[in-house]
Amino acid sequence: MVETTHPGNIGAAARVMANLGVADLRLVRPRVFPAQAASARAAGAEHILEQATVCDTLEGAIAGCSFVIGATARLRTIGSPLLEPQNAASRLIDASRHGSTALVFGQEAAGLTNEHLDLCHAHVRIGVEDDFSSLNVATAVAILIYEVRRQSYPHSSNEDNGCEDDPRLKGTAPMTVSEFERLMEHLERVGHRTGFLTGPRTRLLRKIRRLLRQGLCSQADINIVRGVLTSIEHTIRRSDASGER
Amino acid sequence: MVETTHPGNIGAAARVMANLGVADLRLVRPRVFPAQAASARAAGAEHILEQATVCDTLEGAIAGCSFVIGATARLRTIGSPLLEPQNAASRLIDASRHGSTALVFGQEAAGLTNEHLDLCHAHVRIGVEDDFSSLNVATAVAILIYEVRRQSYPHSSNEDNGCEDDPRLKGTAPMTVSEFERLMEHLERVGHRTGFLTGPRTRLLRKIRRLLRQGLCSQADINIVRGVLTSIEHTIRRSDASGER
Repeated sequence: MVETTHPGNIGAAARVMANLGVADLRLVRPRVFPAQAASARAAGAEHILEQATVCDTLEGAIAGCSFVIGATARLRTIGSPLLEPQNAASRLIDASRHGSTALVFGQEAAGLTNEHLDLCHAHVRIGVEDDFSSLNVATAVAILIYEVRRQSYPHSSNEDNGCEDDPRLKGTAPMTVSEFERLMEHLERVGHRTGFLTGPRTRLLRKIRRLLRQGLCSQADINIVRGVLTSIEHTIRRSDASGER
Repeated sequence: MVETTHPGNIGAAARVMANLGVADLRLVRPRVFPAQAASARAAGAEHILEQATVCDTLEGAIAGCSFVIGATARLRTIGSPLLEPQNAASRLIDASRHGSTALVFGQEAAGLTNEHLDLCHAHVRIGVEDDFSSLNVATAVAILIYEVRRQSYPHSSNEDNGCEDDPRLKGTAPMTVSEFERLMEHLERVGHRTGFLTGPRTRLLRKIRRLLRQGLCSQADINIVRGVLTSIEHTIRRSDASGER
């Protein structure tokens, strides 16, 4: 939960997590935490609150995750597929076979920012009425965890053909958020050197980010792209060095 | 909602009803209603609260209904089938073709009494953890209405992790095989120049091919990657040229 304003919502989320069998709550810059209002609404799910990790950044909170879905109220998001709860849950379940996964929820009023959404592999939107679309964040938590649980028990067969089912993932680890972010930093350095990126965070970079996110699955994939980037840097450096001679 | 103790739960239920397109709220002997706490938690769904009917008895509240399901936390109930949310929702949807239907929720602490449950045609239990089974009543309302809505609206697409659903494909053409092959040739040239490819058709090239095929959807995507490759070539050529001077 990112930048949650009302601690009551943190408590309500903790309660439904405990109801539905999810334990690992991470709070990114909560406005007030710990808080009496959180404990009151948790109604006994105090253990979830006590074990909750408070993080400075979303990137830190999900660094070890290999698949992350951000909840959004927007009808369109740039950069990642926008899923319905059913598909989001099935993707999450598939991905959880290979690594840690996360659902990310934004601030009550503002939701997740573009920067937050960019850190996610996919986005999910709960279908609501157009004229009353403001869903309470703890209600969104409840519905999405319910959907994951519903699909987890009793039948777990899903027909999805994303990276998660890639047979190449066998014997190799899925890439984590932090590995992907380090790759993007590397790419940014090369991009500035060769001139295809001009500003610090260009629109082009976000597009490339999406392309890579869709294409890459594993740590081995990350290594391939980083190898390519390094070879480019070496070549440029060699050429520069011969020029200086 | 029968004998609800906390008006905040009535407000939260009203809010999620408005979110998910359900309008007719009936309150059987609420402890406090109307109430400020209900309005606050309704967060704008005031119209649901204003139109809510306050009744003396559950029987009166559901008198006009032809099919009624009572929510319970009990693992067994006497006299009526105990359904999972999925089956309950599908029964409710079927029945709603022929007459009015209702979902009934009991008091926060005690739930529905046997007398209340006897008035229902079926019972529903949301699957929860054995050691933390106390679900907030408004959360139960949210999950069950979500389930009804999920089954009411045929879900738009099962496989939405493909390029076909990418909103960015709107207004731009999908990439063709030949465009992709030309991109691979371009990549191969750059790869040999920078040294990350050594033979004519390396194993690495096939891996990169797979990564790009998964990541790229449109001609615009192809153009991005070709732009990157061209910028690398220019940089290397510039460096080389300064070396030859």
